[in-house]
Amino acid sequence: MPFRNRLTERLGIEHPVLLAPMDYVAGGRLAAAVSQAGGLGLIGGGYGDGPWLGRAFDAAGNARVGCGFITWSLAKQPALLGQALARGPAAVMLSFGDPRPFAREIHEAGATLICQVQTVAQAHEAMEAGAGVIVAQGTEAGGHGQSLPLTTLLPLVVEACPDIPVVAAGGIADGRGLAAAMTYGAEGVMMGTRFYVTEEADIDPRAKARAVAAGPGETVRSIVFDIARKNVWPAPYTGRVLRNATTERWLGREAEMQEHAEEVAADYAVARARGDFDVAGVIVGEASALIHDIPPAAAVVECVVREAEAAIARAARV
Amino acid sequence: MPFRNRLTERLGIEHPVLLAPMDYVAGGRLAAAVSQAGGLGLIGGGYGDGPWLGRAFDAAGNARVGCGFITWSLAKQPALLGQALARGPAAVMLSFGDPRPFAREIHEAGATLICQVQTVAQAHEAMEAGAGVIVAQGTEAGGHGQSLPLTTLLPLVVEACPDIPVVAAGGIADGRGLAAAMTYGAEGVMMGTRFYVTEEADIDPRAKARAVAAGPGETVRSIVFDIARKNVWPAPYTGRVLRNATTERWLGREAEMQEHAEEVAADYAVARARGDFDVAGVIVGEASALIHDIPPAAAVVECVVREAEAAIARAARV
Repeated sequence: MPFRNRLTERLGIEHPVLLAPMDYVAGGRLAAAVSQAGGLGLIGGGYGDGPWLGRAFDAAGNARVGCGFITWSLAKQPALLGQALARGPAAVMLSFGDPRPFAREIHEAGATLICQVQTVAQAHEAMEAGAGVIVAQGTEAGGHGQSLPLTTLLPLVVEACPDIPVVAAGGIADGRGLAAAMTYGAEGVMMGTRFYVTEEADIDPRAKARAVAAGPGETVRSIVFDIARKNVWPAPYTGRVLRNATTERWLGREAEMQEHAEEVAADYAVARARGDFDVAGVIVGEASALIHDIPPAAAVVECVVREAEAAIARAARV
Repeated sequence: MPFRNRLTERLGIEHPVLLAPMDYVAGGRLAAAVSQAGGLGLIGGGYGDGPWLGRAFDAAGNARVGCGFITWSLAKQPALLGQALARGPAAVMLSFGDPRPFAREIHEAGATLICQVQTVAQAHEAMEAGAGVIVAQGTEAGGHGQSLPLTTLLPLVVEACPDIPVVAAGGIADGRGLAAAMTYGAEGVMMGTRFYVTEEADIDPRAKARAVAAGPGETVRSIVFDIARKNVWPAPYTGRVLRNATTERWLGREAEMQEHAEEVAADYAVARARGDFDVAGVIVGEASALIHDIPPAAAVVECVVREAEAAIARAARV
């Protein structure tokens, strides 16, 4: 048990490794596997799908998990928060929007409020909301985010929030990443892509296979897939995905793409249903270049912690 | 003397901290200051300006320094390499192009060949060239570079080159960055922006002041300043600079900018001569968000090493 810090204490976990609440991908089975391995699994509440959320908590069984929401989307159907809190989650994570309107309900339910931020200004909002944990998400991350690289954002958030444990996210797939995050003053990591490519992730095996095959430079951050899904986010959020035929066709031509939105969305929905990932998005980040296998989630948690210990010990020896 | 590794041995230095050979900015005085503080100063040979290079080596005096060139530009006037080697540099760094045609001359002169790379494929070329040190430069870096973030590129280059010490560059301004680089398996760091903002850097104080004032998200990677200087690079290289009126005006409109190239370049040259950095480029990277002072270069070297020791010790204690 090498990593004892404010994060592990606050969340009551053994290892400082958190599962990113990836919309639909982080279901109950994956979240439970991460928690049972000593980390904290967060169910991907995403845009808010009540029946799915209920099934995900059911699937987590007795495991102590949390869940995450897209804040601006939760604001449209705030009752979902109550539904989640009724399941007694260890933590609720809010990303992409102002967490303050929801903070009190979360605190009163006894769950830890985790706020994910992409800027220092958002970290200040998170402190005002009484966040127990702040996740600093670099632009390397898959899915939605902003433009600051982790090596800039993370030290600035750590400096801005000395009294709150900070977790690093974006581009981290292994123990070297956890060790590096800790040298910047983070107390743990949140990983999406690494857990997307595990046995328990609720996503088409063909998508996992593409993430494994991806090399460096094969992801891109854009609004192309938001247009394709007719789900354009408030600025300045963009989404990182693997490059494929859709990005080849539309990247840099987003305005024109918008003009064909109906047709594009119809084709996209068909491709997604078929598992045609030349067209549909594989929503993973830069860490995909560092991933070469599809292990069980528990093996990821164990390996990350063991590698991080070794990386820090190696750095300390030189 | 905490950091003894293959890098410090190979370069004969006390601290694993290298000065990026910034064109014109890294003159003899700055390079000498970094070397005298225990790191390795590299004079910015850049595009190749023979008289300037001679003056820079003169200014370095007896300090043991190296120099760096832009490889594709050196290929147009290869005699400059001989001029540099005649000064007995500790090392010659080649960036942005195939180092193999120049490797033999450098090896025969007894200088260490340092190759800076932005992709894994380039790291393989560097090994073929017999590089003694490889610098992995992430997209966070100021000036020219490519698109991979350091947290992806660095571990991949370290894995690809187990027999060569790897140095991390891009987004690093302090000891937390050195410590993080070491957890990824690097053996040192190269810093440009941090040394751009030192007393000895050969650049207008108004440019240094702007770099100090810059916050997160205030740099951008583009070809705008290459067009403005009538110096468009081979693809896929782009240059990171502080945002200013020039980027506000032309970013995303590069084709149109090219149509006005003569006029733009004339205005740019006047602004540059005047020290008008609303128009002229301040060529620094993401690390500018982490920099708040203009110290002597020796203080930077000492501080980075001390902070890195502390960061590693702190990570090892938790």
